[in-house]
Parts: sequence; C-alpha cells; structure tokens
Amino acid sequence: MATNRLEAFSDGVFAIAITLLVLEIRVPTNAGDRLAHELADQWPAYVAYLVSFLVIGIIWMNHHAVIDHLRAVDRPLVGLNLFLLLWVALIPWPTRLVAEYMREGGVAERVAALVYAGTMTMMGIAFGLLWRYASSDRRLLGSGLSDADIARRTRRFTIGAPIYAIALIVALVSAPASLAIIAVLAVYYALPQGGMMRGPSE
Amino acid sequence: MATNRLEAFSDGVFAIAITLLVLEIRVPTNAGDRLAHELADQWPAYVAYLVSFLVIGIIWMNHHAVIDHLRAVDRPLVGLNLFLLLWVALIPWPTRLVAEYMREGGVAERVAALVYAGTMTMMGIAFGLLWRYASSDRRLLGSGLSDADIARRTRRFTIGAPIYAIALIVALVSAPASLAIIAVLAVYYALPQGGMMRGPSE
Amino acid sequence: MATNRLEAFSDGVFAIAITLLVLEIRVPTNAGDRLAHELADQWPAYVAYLVSFLVIGIIWMNHHAVIDHLRAVDRPLVGLNLFLLLWVALIPWPTRLVAEYMREGGVAERVAALVYAGTMTMMGIAFGLLWRYASSDRRLLGSGLSDADIARRTRRFTIGAPIYAIALIVALVSAPASLAIIAVLAVYYALPQGGMMRGPSE
Amino acid sequence: MATNRLEAFSDGVFAIAITLLVLEIRVPTNAGDRLAHELADQWPAYVAYLVSFLVIGIIWMNHHAVIDHLRAVDRPLVGLNLFLLLWVALIPWPTRLVAEYMREGGVAERVAALVYAGTMTMMGIAFGLLWRYASSDRRLLGSGLSDADIARRTRRFTIGAPIYAIALIVALVSAPASLAIIAVLAVYYALPQGGMMRGPSE
Repeated sequence: MATNRLEAFSDGVFAIAITLLVLEIRVPTNAGDRLAHELADQWPAYVAYLVSFLVIGIIWMNHHAVIDHLRAVDRPLVGLNLFLLLWVALIPWPTRLVAEYMREGGVAERVAALVYAGTMTMMGIAFGLLWRYASSDRRLLGSGLSDADIARRTRRFTIGAPIYAIALIVALVSAPASLAIIAVLAVYYALPQGGMMRGPSE
Repeated sequence: MATNRLEAFSDGVFAIAITLLVLEIRVPTNAGDRLAHELADQWPAYVAYLVSFLVIGIIWMNHHAVIDHLRAVDRPLVGLNLFLLLWVALIPWPTRLVAEYMREGGVAERVAALVYAGTMTMMGIAFGLLWRYASSDRRLLGSGLSDADIARRTRRFTIGAPIYAIALIVALVSAPASLAIIAVLAVYYALPQGGMMRGPSE
Repeated sequence: MATNRLEAFSDGVFAIAITLLVLEIRVPTNAGDRLAHELADQWPAYVAYLVSFLVIGIIWMNHHAVIDHLRAVDRPLVGLNLFLLLWVALIPWPTRLVAEYMREGGVAERVAALVYAGTMTMMGIAFGLLWRYASSDRRLLGSGLSDADIARRTRRFTIGAPIYAIALIVALVSAPASLAIIAVLAVYYALPQGGMMRGPSE
Repeated sequence: MATNRLEAFSDGVFAIAITLLVLEIRVPTNAGDRLAHELADQWPAYVAYLVSFLVIGIIWMNHHAVIDHLRAVDRPLVGLNLFLLLWVALIPWPTRLVAEYMREGGVAERVAALVYAGTMTMMGIAFGLLWRYASSDRRLLGSGLSDADIARRTRRFTIGAPIYAIALIVALVSAPASLAIIAVLAVYYALPQGGMMRGPSE
C-alpha cells in the first residue's frame, strides 16, 4: 500500500470524526421562552466539543508528522494505524457522554470523564505504538530525520499516553480536573515546541 | 505539512459539514394524512438548509482562493485553519436550532438567530485572521498575486465578519432580518465581483 | 479553481450522501420476539435505500463523465456544481420520508413519493444545466470529445429531468409507480448504452 | 474513469462507513448513578463496533490489494464496485441491530445476528465477484502479478463469502457463535498470510 493512500484514508476518518462531534450538541426540544436558559445549561457540551475538536486536530497534525516521513508502509503499520483510528473514530461517543453527564455531578460525571480519559489513553497508546514501530531502528523512516529529530519526536509522541493515564486516575476524583488535564495537553501539543513543524530539518 | 494535505483535510471537513446539514431536516412521525401540512409547516428547516449550504459552499470557495496561493504552510496557519474549521463544523448545530425555533416567534426565535449569526461571526473572524496572517507582508503567499490583488482580497475577506456582526445585533430585534442579511452576504460572495476567480491574474 | 479540487470536493459530498443513506433504516426498539416481523414490515426502507444508492451512484458516474472532460473551471460552473450538490446532499431526507410513509398508503404515501420525485427532478435539472453550460459552444470542454460525442451526451444528460418530472406527476396517483420509474431510469443509466464509458473516444 | 478516482470515492465510503459506526453506541439517558452499570450493560455495542470496524478495515485493505493492480477500469467493474459499496455502506445498520438486540437472548438476538451475517455474506459475494471479474483472463489486471499471485489472491478473496454463509447458518442456532466466526475471519485476513502485502511481488 502506498503511503499516500494510507494518509488519505486516515485523513478521511479524522475529518469525519471531527465533523461528527457536532452531532453531540443537542437542540433543546419545546424549550419555548426558556431556550436561552436551556442552551446555557448545556455548557458542558460546548466544552466537550472544543476539547475533542482540539484533540482530534492535534492528533491529525501529529499523524502527518509521522506519515510524511515514512518511506514505506508495511502490514503491521497498517494494522497499528487501524488500531489508532479505532480510538479516534470512537471519540464522538465519550464526547456525547461528557456533554450529557458533566452537568450532573456525582458518580455519573466521574464515570463519563473516566470513559473519556480512557478513550484518550488508548488513543495515546496507539499513537505511541505506531511511532515506535515505524521509528525503531528507522524501520520505515526515510532519511529526512536526524537521530536527534527522532529522539525528540519519540519524547513528544510517547508523553501523551502517560498523561492521559493520569487524567484517567484523576477522573476517579474530579471530572473537571480530568478534562482540564486533557485540554492542557492538547494546548501543549499545539504550541510550537510541542509540535513538529518548526525548522527546515523537520 | 504540505499545502495539498491541508487542503484535502479542510475540503473533507467542508464536504462533511455541508452534507450533514440534511440531518437537521426532520421527517414528521405518524403524520398520516397531515403529512403535506406538517412538511409545509417546517419551512424554516428548508430555508436554514439552503442558507447554511450556501454559506459553507461560499466559504469553501473562498478558502480555495486563499490556499491555492500559499507557497508554504506553517504551524500558526494550521492552527488558524483548525480555528476556522471549528466554526465551519459547528454550523449544522445552529442550523438545527433555527430550523426548530424559527417558526415559534417570540424570544426563542431570536435566540436561535442570535446563535446562528454568532457562529457565522466567529467563522468570519477566523477566516479574516487566516487571510491576514497568510497575506500580511506576503508571509506565506506565492508570487501569483499582485499587491492590488492582495488588497482587493483583503477587502473582500474581511468584510464578512463585521456584516455577520450586524446580523448578530439585528437578531436581537428580528430573526428573519438577521437571516436575510446572512443570505444576502452569501449571494454577494457568490457574484463574480464578490468572488476571486475572474481574471487570469487570479 | 483546479478541476481536480472541484472533483475531490464533489466526490466527497457524493460519498458522504451515499453513506448517510444508511441512517434512514431504523432499528426497531423493544421489538422482542417480533423483531423479524418488524424488520420485514419496514421493507420500504430497504427499497428506498437501494434506489437512492443507485441514483447517487449513477449521478456520481455521470458527474465524472462531465468533469473528466473539462479543460477549465469557471465561477458559474462552480456555482452550478454547488446547485447540483445541494440536491444530491438532500437525497437522504426524501429517502427517509419514503422509508417512513411508503407502507402507509393513502395521501401520506403519495406526498412522500412527490417530495422524492421532486428532489430527483431538481437534481436532474441541475445536472442538465451543468452539462449544458460546460458543453455549449464547447465553453469549458477540452478536445477529447467529438461533436457527435457531445450531442450523444447532451441527449443522455438532459433526458433525466423530464423523466423525473413524469415520476413527479405519477406520484400524484401512485407512489410505487413513481419510484419504479426512478429506479428504471437509474438502471437505464447503468447500462452500457446509457453510460459514458464505452469506447476509446469516450 | 481513472483508477485513482474509483479508489478515492471508494476510500471515502469506507472511511465514512467506519466512522459512522460510532453512532450506534448509545449514550444512556437519565442514567444518574446507574451510568456505569448501564454502560456495562450495553457491552454488545462495543463488541459490534469492534467487529464491524475490523471487518470494514480489512475489506478496505483487500480492496486496495485489488485496485492497486488494475491497469484499467471499465463500466462493469464500476458497477460491481458500487454493488460492493452498497453492502459496505449498509454495515452500520446491522451493527446497530446487533448492539441493540444481542443482550436480549431469544429469537431477537438470532434475528439480529442473521441480518448481520447476511450483510457480510452479500459483501463477501460482491468482493469475490469484483475480484473474479477483474482477474479472470487478467481482464483488467496489470502485469505486476504472477499467475501464482493471482491464484493465491483468488483463494483468499473468495473464501470470505462461504465462511460468512456458514456464520449465517450458525446464526439460526447461536448469535454469539455467528459473530465469533465473523471476527475470526477478520483476524485471519489481518494476519500476514491472510493478507496481500508481504513480498516484493505483491
């Protein structure tokens, strides 16, 4: 399989998953004059939309920073990529969960955050595996990256999973804190030093 | 990241958002012999579908008029592009809101129009920022555009946000008037002089 | 705008619309042991899925038979193409209508078929306009087609709208007959002589 | 029609169908403190998501293993490809059926599994036909494959339908056993010897 086919299919899944997020934001029924009030009440839906949009957008960018440097694609890589997409495509579901139960407080709120952080953790693990497989001994990498580039990417691309795992544990205690960790991680990746598009060698 | 990857991903989001609009048009349940009547009753849904389709279609065209002239893509541009897509992907939601509450009159109708115009305003701001960032000092532009071309585009691409903002204020008074402004702006962009595909230099 | 960008965006809308059709097929709730019975009862949903899938698939093929021969794209063509996509993207909605009301008989059934045939008629008109605009005086066509090729395509591409219009009128009397006409037209287009991919000159 | 257009459209449908699967996983309403319990209760939805994701992912890979070796595309192939996509695009629906009725036991569970296995059987038949048509007498194949390569692919690509048919029959007796067969087949295709991306000649 050609690299660009893998990229096009993955981009399709990223684009669809990020656009399906909007379906989780509800339109109140028969709200009448209370519409403004009910829209304000469902603020967790907007937060969830924003955080999930950011997370998928960042993963899409990081995914390119991997795929663009591949010189070849083999079967295990395609499999690992599907494993990653399995979790990316799932994101709209925990996003709806958080949108629905975040305002509730109590156990439900923490369960929703737990599922959300759990999905992110699995996605982080999948992304780390994908990068590790492609980069170890430069198995599938072209010559565009120096050893230092690879080492730096390895640090960046494998830091996600443990931080998501922390968010998972925090979710047992506080749902908002758990989501905040995930949002902060997304912002970190969005910042220049967190990303992979800085210098000519990158 | 290559320009064409950014373009393909963005096109995917535009195409999905524009096609998801159809999900906001309801199929009446158990209408029986009143089906024609109930379908006629939900005319705001058709208007909302049409206006949102037009808006996304126009933004897609304008987006190409920007991306096609980029000689390079940097990280802030990718970020600004995601910020634009965040609002584009959101459009099906305020469209559903308008479809649902436009026929109601009263406060709900104006709240729906307010959210609709607000989403458009944010999208207009995001588009203006994207163009400003790419074009100021020709930061990311190739040599295909003259200074006059750039100045004309700047006028066209930054006029959207303030007009959407006017629609936002008008929504406080009249929902139909607010939507009409947004529809007229879309038609303006659709006209040759409003668009960007006229002469050989463009 | 480059031809291939127009094609990619349109293909995206076609692919999404054709895949969204599945959302119109309902999963009965709490059917229990009556599940098989309830699934059989909603046979119009399967017919509607099949016919709409066929129609969109055929239009997608015919669309390529147009776009592949363009040597240039101008603004009116982009506008006409958006007008076509407006109706293509709408198809999942009348499909749901037919799926829901076909089993009812009476007025509702005919109203659903009317809306379905009406959507197809508008799509047929849009497609005819697109082809006419591109081909008259070879405005946007390359040199790959002979005059005879163009004349034959004009016959094929403009026969859709009047036949859909007949289905529209027939819907006033009989919903199944109306759908049958649309299905037969799709099969006609699918046959070699109805299509555009036969000889080397095509 | 160019091979790459057929591929891009098909990839779009695969990517959308695989991403729409997530819509079948429900968010419990008003679960309150019982949220964790209700989420656990709907485990068949997760199994169905996983199996369907795997099946579509594998079919996508196998589809590439066919399309990548075509030297030309003719009208019957486009038709057979649409026939395949008809079943691929349908998969989210039997997936929802299984998700909804698997936990029920009794007749409903077996009916759901029957519809699921039936859809897979039809997809397997469509895929086999597609390959047979393209490969018999090397009708549309390029020279990249040896006769032995073709024979091996024929074995692999036509083994799906009969096994899915067995799953169909098994569904009459046991829904879980039926799904297990489908899952095992997907894993078989995922393994190197089941797949088509191994040596240089492939």
